[in-house]
Amino acid sequence: MRIGVLTSGGDCPGLNAVIRSVVHRGLDVHGDQIVGVEDGFLGLIESRARPIGHDDVTGLLTLGGTVLGSARVQREKIRWAVDHAEELAARIGIDALIAIGGEGTLGAAKLFSDAGLPVVGVPKTIDNDIDATDVTFGFDTAVHVATEAIDRLKTTAESHQRVMVVELMGRHTGWITLTAGMAGGAHGILIPEKPFDIERVARMIEERFDRGKKFAIIAVAEGAVPATGTMRFDHGEVDQFGHRTFGGIGTRLAHELEDLLGKEARPVILGHVQRGGTPTARDRVLATRFGWHAVEAVHKGAFGHFTALRGSQIELVPVAEAVTRLKTVPADRWAESEAVL
Amino acid sequence: MRIGVLTSGGDCPGLNAVIRSVVHRGLDVHGDQIVGVEDGFLGLIESRARPIGHDDVTGLLTLGGTVLGSARVQREKIRWAVDHAEELAARIGIDALIAIGGEGTLGAAKLFSDAGLPVVGVPKTIDNDIDATDVTFGFDTAVHVATEAIDRLKTTAESHQRVMVVELMGRHTGWITLTAGMAGGAHGILIPEKPFDIERVARMIEERFDRGKKFAIIAVAEGAVPATGTMRFDHGEVDQFGHRTFGGIGTRLAHELEDLLGKEARPVILGHVQRGGTPTARDRVLATRFGWHAVEAVHKGAFGHFTALRGSQIELVPVAEAVTRLKTVPADRWAESEAVL
Amino acid sequence: MRIGVLTSGGDCPGLNAVIRSVVHRGLDVHGDQIVGVEDGFLGLIESRARPIGHDDVTGLLTLGGTVLGSARVQREKIRWAVDHAEELAARIGIDALIAIGGEGTLGAAKLFSDAGLPVVGVPKTIDNDIDATDVTFGFDTAVHVATEAIDRLKTTAESHQRVMVVELMGRHTGWITLTAGMAGGAHGILIPEKPFDIERVARMIEERFDRGKKFAIIAVAEGAVPATGTMRFDHGEVDQFGHRTFGGIGTRLAHELEDLLGKEARPVILGHVQRGGTPTARDRVLATRFGWHAVEAVHKGAFGHFTALRGSQIELVPVAEAVTRLKTVPADRWAESEAVL
Amino acid sequence: MRIGVLTSGGDCPGLNAVIRSVVHRGLDVHGDQIVGVEDGFLGLIESRARPIGHDDVTGLLTLGGTVLGSARVQREKIRWAVDHAEELAARIGIDALIAIGGEGTLGAAKLFSDAGLPVVGVPKTIDNDIDATDVTFGFDTAVHVATEAIDRLKTTAESHQRVMVVELMGRHTGWITLTAGMAGGAHGILIPEKPFDIERVARMIEERFDRGKKFAIIAVAEGAVPATGTMRFDHGEVDQFGHRTFGGIGTRLAHELEDLLGKEARPVILGHVQRGGTPTARDRVLATRFGWHAVEAVHKGAFGHFTALRGSQIELVPVAEAVTRLKTVPADRWAESEAVL
Repeated sequence: MRIGVLTSGGDCPGLNAVIRSVVHRGLDVHGDQIVGVEDGFLGLIESRARPIGHDDVTGLLTLGGTVLGSARVQREKIRWAVDHAEELAARIGIDALIAIGGEGTLGAAKLFSDAGLPVVGVPKTIDNDIDATDVTFGFDTAVHVATEAIDRLKTTAESHQRVMVVELMGRHTGWITLTAGMAGGAHGILIPEKPFDIERVARMIEERFDRGKKFAIIAVAEGAVPATGTMRFDHGEVDQFGHRTFGGIGTRLAHELEDLLGKEARPVILGHVQRGGTPTARDRVLATRFGWHAVEAVHKGAFGHFTALRGSQIELVPVAEAVTRLKTVPADRWAESEAVL
Repeated sequence: MRIGVLTSGGDCPGLNAVIRSVVHRGLDVHGDQIVGVEDGFLGLIESRARPIGHDDVTGLLTLGGTVLGSARVQREKIRWAVDHAEELAARIGIDALIAIGGEGTLGAAKLFSDAGLPVVGVPKTIDNDIDATDVTFGFDTAVHVATEAIDRLKTTAESHQRVMVVELMGRHTGWITLTAGMAGGAHGILIPEKPFDIERVARMIEERFDRGKKFAIIAVAEGAVPATGTMRFDHGEVDQFGHRTFGGIGTRLAHELEDLLGKEARPVILGHVQRGGTPTARDRVLATRFGWHAVEAVHKGAFGHFTALRGSQIELVPVAEAVTRLKTVPADRWAESEAVL
Repeated sequence: MRIGVLTSGGDCPGLNAVIRSVVHRGLDVHGDQIVGVEDGFLGLIESRARPIGHDDVTGLLTLGGTVLGSARVQREKIRWAVDHAEELAARIGIDALIAIGGEGTLGAAKLFSDAGLPVVGVPKTIDNDIDATDVTFGFDTAVHVATEAIDRLKTTAESHQRVMVVELMGRHTGWITLTAGMAGGAHGILIPEKPFDIERVARMIEERFDRGKKFAIIAVAEGAVPATGTMRFDHGEVDQFGHRTFGGIGTRLAHELEDLLGKEARPVILGHVQRGGTPTARDRVLATRFGWHAVEAVHKGAFGHFTALRGSQIELVPVAEAVTRLKTVPADRWAESEAVL
Repeated sequence: MRIGVLTSGGDCPGLNAVIRSVVHRGLDVHGDQIVGVEDGFLGLIESRARPIGHDDVTGLLTLGGTVLGSARVQREKIRWAVDHAEELAARIGIDALIAIGGEGTLGAAKLFSDAGLPVVGVPKTIDNDIDATDVTFGFDTAVHVATEAIDRLKTTAESHQRVMVVELMGRHTGWITLTAGMAGGAHGILIPEKPFDIERVARMIEERFDRGKKFAIIAVAEGAVPATGTMRFDHGEVDQFGHRTFGGIGTRLAHELEDLLGKEARPVILGHVQRGGTPTARDRVLATRFGWHAVEAVHKGAFGHFTALRGSQIELVPVAEAVTRLKTVPADRWAESEAVL
């Protein structure tokens, strides 16, 4: 078969490993031809695609990012593409498509499949917010990077008897912050799922200092929000140039804790470092397995499905299961971290 | 409650993180007293134990090894201890015990519980061979270390156009080798579950060289065995001093491949590096969650059970489920790696 | 002898390794008594000090930060302490002092020595801005952390065809940025020593994109400044709460490059991660050697001197040589990075 | 100018970074043409060479190994090549050569230069045994890898109350072992420069155990030798198949210490992992600077010279200075490690 592959949405360590795995499995075992579609659905729309073979994927297992590029495409364009699915597929000469992306991409997989371009999805998100799969690749790497940062911050916070506020990725869900916070032994873990009371955070830190501890680490997701009225500043002022002042929640939280506590509090905004670089071993394996099973799914005709990790097994799940709701941190998982709060 | 905690069996990154988590959860939430039992069941037998509190577990989240020590104890001694369970518990003043260890330890948990010393088990193995849990802590760290080694060996193998044979841990199961082999992109993965034919391995490498590739990486589990008659040397000769000659399978495989291929082949035996050092973020979180749930299990009275990861949840499973059989690499998991073979 | 040891100034990986080395060398070889002075010169002034032995330094080789604590002390207080040097030394029972710190600390070493408290200095700075020593411990670790971040940012910048601006430490000197920028292959390296023209930076990036490259990495020291009139925003506005708006130079540079280029540009402010955590092997060895030589210097009576690395040797240098000028990046070192600009 | 570049001798992290730097500096600044010569001097002899440009060196900064390949060539062949130097240079169209290699390569640089093929040398060795330069690239990476291994071995040695013997690279010199041993806090450091007395090593470990310490780490260079008569086994028996029994000194030392001490002692042979993989930041920078200066040296006509690090500066040194003697660990450097012995 002639199988297209594209990567869509935000960057995520392991995308290249999926591409490599698709090529290995498709070429070596099934005798498929693999066509790399550039810049996500944009390449499909603009017929930018090229055959990829073994040489093109050499070294990709360990390389972050995506050699196919990725771009965000407006919904109308996607809808237009769905309407012209068969024609677009014919132009770049593919019989089926493996689409690696987030919730939106998985949703599109179903639409394209119904419209005549059979698509298998591979879920991708560093945020771990896709339902119906235990986890996706990229998440473990993001947590690894965030944990290494917390490890480093701890010693310097202790030496200087400071509060360190480390802001981690996660606009809608707190998985990275919860997990890296637990792995790094953060003393407070603030996530979007649970609006925080800054007075309570300050009190908890004070009690910690009263017990003779000389420092504290607060891990905060970029999407964490104060409970109404608990922070002096509103969130997200925008200045006359259109730039947000004060930076994000991490910076503002540090400033305000410093005022409340009368102690040095410093923000660290880890940012895009969490999205890049070589994937962890775990993410490489998961990405490789997803690629392997996506090719098998194409040959089985399991279109409109995506690869999901369930326990130790990869299963094929209807995309509808992934797009109905965002997977947020449930109360009982949050409870497990309270011991270290 | 007064809860004892001990670590038993081979070393495993994350043991200290479990101990720390037990102390945090027990002291802070339940007001328990935690008693650290030294050197596994030996400390129970010899009444070597001490109360441990917050200060004793500071820094343990990231520290490999076990501050309680670990020792292997003969079966008869364990049997004797079971017979004197209540008395031994009374001597060190504990009402219940959290026993962190491998298959043997989990088995003992049931015996002690029946004999009057209620025990909750926490599974531990870098080998990932305990059934009834998706995975245990320590495994991810071992795979991480092994993968980093393979990453490094690849560039040097390529520059020198060599075959590199890297021997990884796993006497009875191939999980570390399969997983690190896939993560590192090894070209051959040899595991105990599947006796290998050295001629076939050599042929595969030759075909690779014929395709213009200048090097190969073979990942081999220490317990991998040649199919009968396929290797010139028998495995495991012992010299007059009682020491094994030729090293293990890795060394012998490299020697023999060199002879068969007429190309340089070098063994690397990674050894105990896989067992030590700071746990990965994933293992720290898993260990912390296991400790949390073990304390809860004690308070629920779920004795004779152990903490198990099932998907994303921690469940309590009767120890009988863990000790009936070794979890080996199934055929379909092995198949997923064939693309990279 | 009774030798005090203190750490002063900002945090720096390797401080603990010096303390450990002083204890090992002093106790084991010379039979000294080592007294740890808390919180830098503050502990000297307030007579907060305690004997430290082997058990106190176990594990310190790999631990970032300083177990003795560190605090900044006002100049007048230091002057007062110099006037009462002998008395303060007598109170905590020390015959000599090893002071580990930056330029200011080394300067104080001379004053105390002249005033009757003989001091040997050990230079410490992650910024590498102390003259008269090739390098100090902490710098290699900071560069290591910054380089890992750039490595990770590269793949994500490339996948999304973005400009990434990474702001690194260095208020007065550009050593970390120059070195990590070269190590990470940054395309622009902006340091305090060389005011930059933002139009020129933008043009360079455009030429790079014109050559078909899809991304660029700009490494900028926190103290880098635009040449007069080349940036739209002034540096360092302060809002009504006393907090700096727009963050630092990295954030502002990214915003303005985005406007100039019409391309996404994202800032990453690495921050305190560069100051913490386990030191690199190189820094551990340098710190250990400095501690060793500091003890020898005390026994030789080389007071008012500090340990300096010259080539491969540790030499004792009069502190006057370290405090006359800041070691900035010279023009010829900068030139070496131009190939990658 | 048309400048050839080749890499010769054993693998070393940073070789690719030198090649990249030569291309950047030569093409961008001097308008040179760079010709990559394959497999060291073998490619020169066999006229295997190709022009290399920017695209060929993309990604090389962080990639271990050498994309040009490397091969060991017999001395007579080198001599023949020297006799035909001008002719060989003409065949592949080069005016000058940058030869990256060890002592032998640097020696050849002089011979070729005298014979009409002007050569500039770039020193390369993970062993740090080249005189006249403070250090070369590759060494820091080898030490980094070895130190990480020792860090991991420490926790597992302690948990199991074991002696761990870690064998590191260095047949003739002990630099890697001395430096990684100090960085990892090894309790014994055995190097070729100082034949060891195994009874003394055993006694030192026993004293350590007597002081209540539960483990010991011995770092031993592969070329370390026992003082005459102090070990029961002779070094390097060879069996009937031509393979060395017992492995190297690490394995034998562990066996014998186990017998002497009556305690578990385990060998870990780190092997080729020390030679491969991404270079440390420090090695990347040093390699980049060497490449930069090598191109400048070609344009200055400094043939028969090699790039050397002296303090913080790169200098050009006559190759004669590098080849007169091996740089071994001097007594005073060894002394600095005694505190941790």
